[in-house]
Amino acid sequence: MFKAIIESDKLKEMIEAVSSIVDEGKLNLSSDGISIKAVDPANVAMVSLNLNSDAFEEFNASEGELGVDLKRLGDIVDMAQKAEMVELELDEEQHKLIIRMSGLTYKIALLDPASIRKEPKIPQLELPATIVLSGNDLKRAVKAAEKVSDHMCMGVEGETFYLEAESDSDRMRLDIVKDQLVSIIPGDARSLFSLDYLSDMIKAAGKANEVTVELGRDFPTKINFQIANGNGDVSYLLAPRIESD
Amino acid sequence: MFKAIIESDKLKEMIEAVSSIVDEGKLNLSSDGISIKAVDPANVAMVSLNLNSDAFEEFNASEGELGVDLKRLGDIVDMAQKAEMVELELDEEQHKLIIRMSGLTYKIALLDPASIRKEPKIPQLELPATIVLSGNDLKRAVKAAEKVSDHMCMGVEGETFYLEAESDSDRMRLDIVKDQLVSIIPGDARSLFSLDYLSDMIKAAGKANEVTVELGRDFPTKINFQIANGNGDVSYLLAPRIESD
Amino acid sequence: MFKAIIESDKLKEMIEAVSSIVDEGKLNLSSDGISIKAVDPANVAMVSLNLNSDAFEEFNASEGELGVDLKRLGDIVDMAQKAEMVELELDEEQHKLIIRMSGLTYKIALLDPASIRKEPKIPQLELPATIVLSGNDLKRAVKAAEKVSDHMCMGVEGETFYLEAESDSDRMRLDIVKDQLVSIIPGDARSLFSLDYLSDMIKAAGKANEVTVELGRDFPTKINFQIANGNGDVSYLLAPRIESD
Repeated sequence: MFKAIIESDKLKEMIEAVSSIVDEGKLNLSSDGISIKAVDPANVAMVSLNLNSDAFEEFNASEGELGVDLKRLGDIVDMAQKAEMVELELDEEQHKLIIRMSGLTYKIALLDPASIRKEPKIPQLELPATIVLSGNDLKRAVKAAEKVSDHMCMGVEGETFYLEAESDSDRMRLDIVKDQLVSIIPGDARSLFSLDYLSDMIKAAGKANEVTVELGRDFPTKINFQIANGNGDVSYLLAPRIESD
Repeated sequence: MFKAIIESDKLKEMIEAVSSIVDEGKLNLSSDGISIKAVDPANVAMVSLNLNSDAFEEFNASEGELGVDLKRLGDIVDMAQKAEMVELELDEEQHKLIIRMSGLTYKIALLDPASIRKEPKIPQLELPATIVLSGNDLKRAVKAAEKVSDHMCMGVEGETFYLEAESDSDRMRLDIVKDQLVSIIPGDARSLFSLDYLSDMIKAAGKANEVTVELGRDFPTKINFQIANGNGDVSYLLAPRIESD
Repeated sequence: MFKAIIESDKLKEMIEAVSSIVDEGKLNLSSDGISIKAVDPANVAMVSLNLNSDAFEEFNASEGELGVDLKRLGDIVDMAQKAEMVELELDEEQHKLIIRMSGLTYKIALLDPASIRKEPKIPQLELPATIVLSGNDLKRAVKAAEKVSDHMCMGVEGETFYLEAESDSDRMRLDIVKDQLVSIIPGDARSLFSLDYLSDMIKAAGKANEVTVELGRDFPTKINFQIANGNGDVSYLLAPRIESD
């Protein structure tokens, strides 16, 4: 059983955060809300998302999982206006998801959860450095790096969070000092990441007031932020690339 | 003889309404105004447009017809600013159309009316159901249907105007109840139409405050609306597609 | 030695004006400012630009020349916000250009000035007619002409500046009378130009309050305007095309 009502913007945030990693997702339902875990086809990026039942106007769900084509769902929810209520309901008999908004009803086929890539086991990492900054600042860094390369290094030097990108001929470096950050826990940290993935992640993260970036030396990075006015959270894990000197 | 002055926006409305069906049009001139009748190359959609002489600041025309490349004319009229006056004049000697606006003069070749597809005889249909709604609501329905299919069913159930689209796996239905309509004359009505044509028609119709949709069972639909502040009207006729079950 | 600070908008104006003619430019440095002279690969259009040291917040340069990839520099300066200060510095040892703005540092490779097309000798022309008009009006004329052709004639008739374009079937003519001009010195003038080049030039010139156009009969045109709030100027020279009758 699943029936829920939610503001369109919150639903869009959820879909955007996950569809930057995978096209098809398994929604885990419980009375507490919805959770999604997914890993991209290349095994480089993972996402773990929770949307609490408090994010919804109404939420009724028994334990279960729904296989959803996220691109299709996002495309449909785009029909909703800002702040419009969207109703989601499972049609168990026909195995379809019903989406309702102001007179408009969609019924879309669910995917067989068994056909969706297995949920990843998300590793517990203790990373030495933690930086909290505005999503917009992180977005600017990604855009600045894309001008010169397709990968970007993130690191910590003293109390400064730095981002670097380099091509054969050109270089960019962005220093974000403590004053411009929300907070920083310094630590030994410098790792290289693919800008392709960071660009996708920043679509959702760039809208958050605060984004937490955890870093180590040649280690994965964890990028966390809240959605749905604090009633949900997203955690990305991105594997590093090997830096050649 | 033909010489007329009209606000650019009204002229753009006329061109847009017809060029959604055909690229080349025959403008029938009389002292009452301009009328255009055209059918698309596939014989699926017809348009009949009247623009009264009252829509013009000045209008002088003797009986005649002008073959016009509507895309080219529209492209040129796009140079005019909002509410700018545009002057049209026939150069009979050179067989050209002169278009003037604030210092700028274009002279474009007219087409031989005999080279343009023959004007259709527009059938007189008595359709059982008539729905009047805002152009914007009809536009939303077309957009909603395009998410799942390339054709859309329009029908009446009681006093509700409904629109449906269906693919192998997905379905959308939009109910517009009496309260959300300007008016409805219920009747036995359900027909399937190509969204390609409806998308083109809705470009012009979507801007109208009121659009009248006439429907029957597996019958063509008539879509009417006013242009030029009520000094002109457009009528589309669109053939149904056969619904397979 | 070269180190300078300038508002991003002024730097963008400089880059845009030159990169409409060439992709790579040689910046001539002196204590007075920066000057650039370049000719396009087809030898049809030349640009001569001066940016005085007064256009800069700080300016320190010894005599020298820098070979710069203008597209790349423009792309990087696009990261700057409106009115943000941008610092340029020459790293003589590494032969790179350093670009700094609010925490962000780029280091881009300079080009060997010897690898850049030789600077043109800009001919001194005495042209009989001089028209001064708003950049926006000249831009409108170029857009209007593009509707019918890929070349445009500019000329003077009495105290009217006219622009004409013609295809096999269509014609456009724009008359800008004395009242609509800033000023005009009439003279024997009518020459034909490629719209490709004019479109590129108008990107920068179209933003200027006043553009000076000098014309003769089947002679090149000189198009001049100021940049950087009067602390710089751009001069284009465009060769005519032969008009066939």
